[in-house]
Amino acid sequence: MTQQLAITGVVSADVYQEVVHFYARHMHLLDAGAAAEWAATFVDDCLMDLPNLEPVHGRTALAEMMAKSIAQLRAGGEQRRHWHGMITVDEMPGGELAVRCYALVFSTLFGGEPRLHRTCVCHDVLVREGGTLKVRSRRVTRDDLNTDLS
Amino acid sequence: MTQQLAITGVVSADVYQEVVHFYARHMHLLDAGAAAEWAATFVDDCLMDLPNLEPVHGRTALAEMMAKSIAQLRAGGEQRRHWHGMITVDEMPGGELAVRCYALVFSTLFGGEPRLHRTCVCHDVLVREGGTLKVRSRRVTRDDLNTDLS
Amino acid sequence: MTQQLAITGVVSADVYQEVVHFYARHMHLLDAGAAAEWAATFVDDCLMDLPNLEPVHGRTALAEMMAKSIAQLRAGGEQRRHWHGMITVDEMPGGELAVRCYALVFSTLFGGEPRLHRTCVCHDVLVREGGTLKVRSRRVTRDDLNTDLS
Repeated sequence: MTQQLAITGVVSADVYQEVVHFYARHMHLLDAGAAAEWAATFVDDCLMDLPNLEPVHGRTALAEMMAKSIAQLRAGGEQRRHWHGMITVDEMPGGELAVRCYALVFSTLFGGEPRLHRTCVCHDVLVREGGTLKVRSRRVTRDDLNTDLS
Repeated sequence: MTQQLAITGVVSADVYQEVVHFYARHMHLLDAGAAAEWAATFVDDCLMDLPNLEPVHGRTALAEMMAKSIAQLRAGGEQRRHWHGMITVDEMPGGELAVRCYALVFSTLFGGEPRLHRTCVCHDVLVREGGTLKVRSRRVTRDDLNTDLS
Repeated sequence: MTQQLAITGVVSADVYQEVVHFYARHMHLLDAGAAAEWAATFVDDCLMDLPNLEPVHGRTALAEMMAKSIAQLRAGGEQRRHWHGMITVDEMPGGELAVRCYALVFSTLFGGEPRLHRTCVCHDVLVREGGTLKVRSRRVTRDDLNTDLS
């Protein structure tokens, strides 16, 4: 537990801010249902490991999964909002950025009350492609399913 | 949808941080009921477009609206907390800053349980007056009323 | 009210970012139950003033209080997540940093629904020890108990 929380590679204020800004755009695309643009914020051979789902490999599969999900939400008149916060960023020896952050998901039905849907922890590895940050891998744990409570 | 999410003008880490810090002070003033000080964070001829309300023009009308609102909340023993997050900032050709961010409103009655009151999206245009950021216009959409789900 | 919200000492973008990043690590340690590592983010003679509790003096007492609290939460299968946000930072004449921020506490029982547990305001004084930010004092108010609604 404490090992994964240790500070392993301090990043500059500029890089930290870049990561924060990156997630804002990333989540705006997700919640707006912009599947292709959202998938483009991942590297081509990305890996996504979500709770209760088989891991998803590759940007194409990811965009398909996301398009299906957004279609279901829209059919049900549901708007989700993903918030990343309490973000820590460490630079790995190879230059990748290891991110640990909290993630909230809010859900609102058209005409309904907003609702806190999930509280999660997100572990990302970010890399640069042509100067731009992209997600290489993501592992998310849900607090309600997390048996190690870490 | 995707057009308004496109990156149109990258800002520096300093400017991004300044916007984040600006919103923190801005919302502290709002939630503390400091109507005049809060209104002073807008330009004099500002425009505020809130859901289900007629647009409000000018700082004086804004301060009046806000003072009325805070008086009602206090009479009802209610404390609101406005959170801006997932903030994107783009510099427009004229130097204004176009902000898109998520906004949460929490509500707590004295002696009661805290409650998620609203999830919104906020579109601001920020400008500089004497070196200080100010809000020129604000448009807020509520997820529960938003028919385009974007 | 307005006095405590006045801007008293502008900090650089680097310092602001450092404070934001500090709180992310600080809360990851708290929520992960890393009592000793969390207490190490306070100065030795720190002061913690929490609602409905006697003030706690010193890092040792703080670590003990936190270890007891985390043991109770774990026994009950509860995961808390502390979010600091809407952070303002002012540099005091002596170099200390005065922070005012909002704090949310989310609570999730294993197998249950996530819940908004508290909305609070946190007033910290941060200092540097060997270049590293540490909390010298913390005063937290809960919105549901706060009679001055500020």
